[in-house]
Amino acid sequence: MKKSIGAQALAFLSPVWIVGTYDHEAKPNVMAVAWGGICCSAPPCLSISIQKVRYSYQSIIERKVFTVSVPSEEYAKEADYFGIASGKNVDKFSHTGLTPVRAELIEAPYVKEFPLVIECKVIQALDLGSHTQFIGQIMDVKAEDSVLGENELPLVEKVKPIVVGAKIWTYHGIGKYLGQAFSMGREL
Amino acid sequence: MKKSIGAQALAFLSPVWIVGTYDHEAKPNVMAVAWGGICCSAPPCLSISIQKVRYSYQSIIERKVFTVSVPSEEYAKEADYFGIASGKNVDKFSHTGLTPVRAELIEAPYVKEFPLVIECKVIQALDLGSHTQFIGQIMDVKAEDSVLGENELPLVEKVKPIVVGAKIWTYHGIGKYLGQAFSMGREL
Repeated sequence: MKKSIGAQALAFLSPVWIVGTYDHEAKPNVMAVAWGGICCSAPPCLSISIQKVRYSYQSIIERKVFTVSVPSEEYAKEADYFGIASGKNVDKFSHTGLTPVRAELIEAPYVKEFPLVIECKVIQALDLGSHTQFIGQIMDVKAEDSVLGENELPLVEKVKPIVVGAKIWTYHGIGKYLGQAFSMGREL
Repeated sequence: MKKSIGAQALAFLSPVWIVGTYDHEAKPNVMAVAWGGICCSAPPCLSISIQKVRYSYQSIIERKVFTVSVPSEEYAKEADYFGIASGKNVDKFSHTGLTPVRAELIEAPYVKEFPLVIECKVIQALDLGSHTQFIGQIMDVKAEDSVLGENELPLVEKVKPIVVGAKIWTYHGIGKYLGQAFSMGREL
């Protein structure tokens, strides 16, 4: 029996993405976002949604670029910290001991220790209410050698990304392999 | 060492969402999307991206509503089938034996057997290239009694949602609990 639980921002699951920017003094900063996803294949784009009050918001407005670093599960604590602290008051990189690296194609930093990194150029900004959705065209994807499988694609099992459940706010690692997309459904 | 793997629609992880619509003859239809995510808290909104050639595209353009049904991992095969077959040629509900239920607040069907359902009204449509991004304002969320925990919120461990890795296209269940968001980072 289904029960209405009201109009709320709740749909499983959300990624844990770390958005990297330089502020107006060129200090590297990161924040955690869960409101985001891939939104186009060609040109390849992803979207992230950020509140105007967040310190990173102004950096993205000014520089129109950002990175997404995908943390592996061993960095869940650092990723969560990136969503709690503000770059206005602290240097989140030096506080966590993680390393900012300037992206290759855009003026934004990524997290060296995280296995998968996406460099994005903002092509749209959509004010939706509490959040502004930035659509970033993906200029490049970088992955650690060690997480690549055949065809030079990163493997989920090796990246070990984190997901989070909206509203209930529990972090989870990746579980068992269920099958191959565009394939297992053909049995039906 | 990080290696460039090019500009492609690749960022881990994506949700597996089943989008429900009625076509022009009021036949219930569903399709699987991986390009999507929550994009605003107030008003609560999520986005899904669909190619113009998909049968569901026209239904959403015409009716400006859709549901998202979140399948549990036991339905991975059906979810994948929903992404392969076209509602133009087949009745995906009768083919899989799953049950369409008309949503309460909007004119669109959801999948009865799936534990979490979101009813959405389209408030923006953004042509990005290969895909059109539809932003849906969440009008209601419905969950099976059996997946609710305290505070009447669905638990990730009970919903057992599926995630998928872009490009590598592997489906995965949920793994171990890593901690609580907005909490575990406070230790740092």
